[in-house]
Amino acid sequence: MVTEQVFSLNPLTGEKHAIPTNLDHSKAIDDFVLKNKDKPIIVVQGLGFVGTAMSLVCANAINGDYAVIGIDLPRPNTYWKIKSINDGHCPIVASDKKIELFFNQAKEKGNFLATYDPYAYSKADTIIVDINLDVQKQSNFEKDLEGFDVDLGPFKKAMSTIGENCKEDVLIIVETTVPPGTCQKVVQPIITEALEKRNLKSDAFKLGHSYERVMPGPNYIDSIQNFYRVFSGIDPKSEVATETFLRTVISTKEYPLTKLSNTNSTEIAKVLENSYRAMNIAFITEWSRFAEEAGADIFEVVHAIRMRPTHKNIMLPGIGVGGYCLPKDPLLASWARQNLFAGAPLGMSEEAVKTNDKLPLYAFEFFAKKFGGKLAGKKVLILGVAYAPDVFDTRYTPVEPFYNYLNKEGCEIILHDPLVSYWEEKRLEIETSFDKILDKEDIDFIVIGTGHKIYRNSSALVNKVATQENIFLFDPIGVFSDENIQKMKNGLGTIKVLGRGNI
Amino acid sequence: MVTEQVFSLNPLTGEKHAIPTNLDHSKAIDDFVLKNKDKPIIVVQGLGFVGTAMSLVCANAINGDYAVIGIDLPRPNTYWKIKSINDGHCPIVASDKKIELFFNQAKEKGNFLATYDPYAYSKADTIIVDINLDVQKQSNFEKDLEGFDVDLGPFKKAMSTIGENCKEDVLIIVETTVPPGTCQKVVQPIITEALEKRNLKSDAFKLGHSYERVMPGPNYIDSIQNFYRVFSGIDPKSEVATETFLRTVISTKEYPLTKLSNTNSTEIAKVLENSYRAMNIAFITEWSRFAEEAGADIFEVVHAIRMRPTHKNIMLPGIGVGGYCLPKDPLLASWARQNLFAGAPLGMSEEAVKTNDKLPLYAFEFFAKKFGGKLAGKKVLILGVAYAPDVFDTRYTPVEPFYNYLNKEGCEIILHDPLVSYWEEKRLEIETSFDKILDKEDIDFIVIGTGHKIYRNSSALVNKVATQENIFLFDPIGVFSDENIQKMKNGLGTIKVLGRGNI
Repeated sequence: MVTEQVFSLNPLTGEKHAIPTNLDHSKAIDDFVLKNKDKPIIVVQGLGFVGTAMSLVCANAINGDYAVIGIDLPRPNTYWKIKSINDGHCPIVASDKKIELFFNQAKEKGNFLATYDPYAYSKADTIIVDINLDVQKQSNFEKDLEGFDVDLGPFKKAMSTIGENCKEDVLIIVETTVPPGTCQKVVQPIITEALEKRNLKSDAFKLGHSYERVMPGPNYIDSIQNFYRVFSGIDPKSEVATETFLRTVISTKEYPLTKLSNTNSTEIAKVLENSYRAMNIAFITEWSRFAEEAGADIFEVVHAIRMRPTHKNIMLPGIGVGGYCLPKDPLLASWARQNLFAGAPLGMSEEAVKTNDKLPLYAFEFFAKKFGGKLAGKKVLILGVAYAPDVFDTRYTPVEPFYNYLNKEGCEIILHDPLVSYWEEKRLEIETSFDKILDKEDIDFIVIGTGHKIYRNSSALVNKVATQENIFLFDPIGVFSDENIQKMKNGLGTIKVLGRGNI
Repeated sequence: MVTEQVFSLNPLTGEKHAIPTNLDHSKAIDDFVLKNKDKPIIVVQGLGFVGTAMSLVCANAINGDYAVIGIDLPRPNTYWKIKSINDGHCPIVASDKKIELFFNQAKEKGNFLATYDPYAYSKADTIIVDINLDVQKQSNFEKDLEGFDVDLGPFKKAMSTIGENCKEDVLIIVETTVPPGTCQKVVQPIITEALEKRNLKSDAFKLGHSYERVMPGPNYIDSIQNFYRVFSGIDPKSEVATETFLRTVISTKEYPLTKLSNTNSTEIAKVLENSYRAMNIAFITEWSRFAEEAGADIFEVVHAIRMRPTHKNIMLPGIGVGGYCLPKDPLLASWARQNLFAGAPLGMSEEAVKTNDKLPLYAFEFFAKKFGGKLAGKKVLILGVAYAPDVFDTRYTPVEPFYNYLNKEGCEIILHDPLVSYWEEKRLEIETSFDKILDKEDIDFIVIGTGHKIYRNSSALVNKVATQENIFLFDPIGVFSDENIQKMKNGLGTIKVLGRGNI
């Protein structure tokens, strides 16, 4: 039987790499460990947005000299990263110059390897868990969130793999956002059992939880190295080990660590943080509609309220809520409360997700209604597809459902994002040059999808809208000043600007 | 027929004053105006927590020289204030020394009069509306908020009284928190019609809205004079007049004014501000219960999250949500959206009030359960009855339902509050000396009702709990440090401290 060869596409270079069928990478790992002898070995599980950056931070530790092995599964969407790292090419293109810098420094030192071989775990003094833990949502953006589930299967499997390979006295630090209760009720038993099966000491390993607050934007590295951290340990020795380790990679002098009493507490803290943001956005959504009915500008109103120090963090709805965390973390928490603690659902937090999931639909409906409803054949330029300003992350971006609605109406859609050349989820090439996009002709509608800096009060954009007849702007994010909006409104054509958050 | 004489009790002095039956106060008003000739006259409608302080700020205007007449109805709960002011005694005892200072300065200048006679409106260049506008809630704290209504009747009547007496070119500034839409849809038509009836120009008056952010605590005066203000006008001339006036009484150089496009916008801003707070508290309530189930300390968790600049304002539930604004403003808004704009309810904001209204019950149930349920005959000391730390305001304090639950169980309740000598809503005398309270013996339970500064890590209190057998502390507010809690737990008796927000 001939196995069909499977490839992994590197979206940065366009290259296709055959995924190896022989998964024995032990020679490379042994060589790496030998070359880095005397250095403690850190294995980072998961080479996603967090794991890759965390690997770089560890390989460039401020108070330590580590050898770092990043590990991920040999799959089409991950293998290219392993290949890229080992070929000496940074797998992330970020506006944060430190990413490239840290990668090159690690390359020079030779202390960063990537692999798919679980053999790596056997070499680890410290294992950092940075894999995904997803929520399965029965939501299609068009109707209410009807139900959701959390499949712990893949996460449990990843923990088993660690337990089957790790040293008995390893330090495991979970950075993944997990349902509260997971370290105590899931990770600890799995590792304990696996070690017992291997006839190893089952009470020598250390297990800590310390969640990340990574923002893959201009402060990507700093969001790990130079930011506040919360941590906890499953027992006193784990607490000490976790703290000692964190002090070697994080600037704890400027950003003191916060120790919480147990792993449930830090796990709750993480999902509570994100649920708080999700709730604040959901809350203002209702009010933005009320404001619209009353002829009030919700942007103006919120800016006035933000003058109060106690109200600085009141949020705006924009086109919707995206990113990997906010659309799922409230649900992770509610699931955990029900399934790991036999408690009630977190009703308000679930409601927040429900409201936020509907935002792109509301934004689209507002747009379609205000512009007469006949959208077929219209040429629409969407500026920005990332889920947040100045990041290149498109996971769960609210622009995706908005794009889908326009597509369904038969619009011709042109996409621009200065930071996203390839939109992975939609498998679309995207123009990154703003100049080229502004030269496009016959555009009917411009929609601000993401509040990237480059769009904020861009005079070229203001000029285009003001001087061209029959071109309209929809700005649900609010990237233009009153003055610029007035300029555009006074330009050729009738009312040319809509939105400013009143969606 | 002999009318029965009605009295008004001054809670500060204990004096009872007969309410005059002849309500003609015109001579005093004329004398006052004559004595203050050349000074523009400001009439402040309503001598409550806001109106009295606003009167003092106007009488001591930083950029103006005004004569101020405070007006209220001649009722048992208000007349004593009128009498007190005209007798030269400040009707407010506040921790803010500026209150007394401003009152004495006005007394010396002779530019502050109080009255019950609507004749005063006829003298006013500026009228400031500071009366209450209440929500009628069908809620008894024990069950869900089942419905609510807003009776605009008294407010409309107050506006009519102004319209029947005011000059045709008066400036009216509404400071009252009103259902959004009120200035446009209620005040303007009433004043216009009243002026027309009097054959006066009906388009010369100016109407502005500028809501207060008064906190009757240690910065009582500063919360008016030295704080940010939002304002709007019903038309351009009203906008200008309102702004010009505000610049004479508020430090607008340090605290720039924010002008919004119309009165609906500022009216929304006010209720949105308060709904935002109410929502944040309701949100955390659910999580504090989850934390409790998971053995996590919600205080510890929230403090960890507050390290993030974007999460500084995440709140804690305490014993409940009180004060005049937060329990009603989300409902005012929802009512307005439905009744003045034919819109949908503000569901999430209503839900927040519902959740918050239940907090005192949860706090009580937690307390009763943890301490065995048998509360009859127990001696309970409640420390603090005001609705918030370091204010003397008891309106809608969550301590009231908590007190009622204890009362129903047959507890003997002792009350202390350093700032409240008389609890108006419960008609109860309250001990204000902390030393005297600490000397009380045979106390079974101490409950922290309000987070006054005097209680925070009070060593006398810690000592009392630590050294006495069979005395227990319930601290739903979290006024003690970990260290002090440990001290108390280590004292005589078994577990002595409960709460810290896990209610």
